[in-house]
Amino acid sequence: MKAIEDLVSMLARLPGIGKKSAARIAFHILKADEHYAASLAEKILALKEELKFCSVCGSYTDEDPCSLCTSALRDKTVICVVEQAQDVMTIENSREYRGVYHVLGALLSPLDGIGPDSLKLNKLLDRIRDQAVTEVVVATNPTVEGDTTALYIKKILENSGVKVTRLATGIPVGGDLEYADRLTLARSFRSRVLF
Amino acid sequence: MKAIEDLVSMLARLPGIGKKSAARIAFHILKADEHYAASLAEKILALKEELKFCSVCGSYTDEDPCSLCTSALRDKTVICVVEQAQDVMTIENSREYRGVYHVLGALLSPLDGIGPDSLKLNKLLDRIRDQAVTEVVVATNPTVEGDTTALYIKKILENSGVKVTRLATGIPVGGDLEYADRLTLARSFRSRVLF
Repeated sequence: MKAIEDLVSMLARLPGIGKKSAARIAFHILKADEHYAASLAEKILALKEELKFCSVCGSYTDEDPCSLCTSALRDKTVICVVEQAQDVMTIENSREYRGVYHVLGALLSPLDGIGPDSLKLNKLLDRIRDQAVTEVVVATNPTVEGDTTALYIKKILENSGVKVTRLATGIPVGGDLEYADRLTLARSFRSRVLF
Repeated sequence: MKAIEDLVSMLARLPGIGKKSAARIAFHILKADEHYAASLAEKILALKEELKFCSVCGSYTDEDPCSLCTSALRDKTVICVVEQAQDVMTIENSREYRGVYHVLGALLSPLDGIGPDSLKLNKLLDRIRDQAVTEVVVATNPTVEGDTTALYIKKILENSGVKVTRLATGIPVGGDLEYADRLTLARSFRSRVLF
């Protein structure tokens, strides 16, 4: 049974997978047709080999520069700043945004020793200058680190003439006031909109 | 991004993994060290190659017969009958049972065309006769199919002198009456024990 135990302990290290789910998954793979296991293993290996980072915006891509940066359909004068490469895919899935992206790679966190030099900010400033950018949408998470980073970006762009915006924080769609936490509720009051 | 999308769609077919969890897992693998992805892929392939079924009891094993069937520490006069091979591991994890096992491979389900011939019942009867078995513990799930199968086994062993028992059904440890479903509650009443 070592083969099962080995796989279960590897799977249990994945996010959101406990020991029980890992066992269920392992047995599922074991019972699935031969092709599935081989194909799953192959896709896992392909992931690391095929994916690169875009040298312009820093998001995941097959080709450099990425399809978003080279697309004629995207508005190059608006840059959405995100923490990590996968945030680009999350935002793309919402099909709301038509500009381009910039991945910071980290958020400011003085306690963890992550200062402005750890973020790809110089590259962002270069892009803003070279491409006649008019708006920077800061899409960092509404956490202490995300808020700090957003404020920092707002500050360094203060006299650049670029409009700096931030994603709205509030009660999620389909959410319930009763279950909203105090801070979210406070923020959604502060950012209330005309209706 | 094809590499990510491919892996996400493979992962989303696993039990308990939706599209969002699949994406989280894919990004985790992408960000994990090189060694993890290679090792995970290898374990998935090894699973199918290394695991066999025990020719005696039918459970998963590295060597045939399995370590449970050959162990001198296990009581060969008690056989626990389970539906599928992975149930053996589940029961072993509870560290309560010291007998041996018999995997049926399926449960009776007339509507799906699964009759007694689809179950490894003849082999069970052979083992009972050859090994002086005194007790058969039927550990099928408390579902319609599991109950039907348990009753069928009880019936075919009626005049064999072998004691046929069944796992207790009732409110789970740490459970709450309020959340127990009607059938579970009814069964736990019917099977109430002296305290």
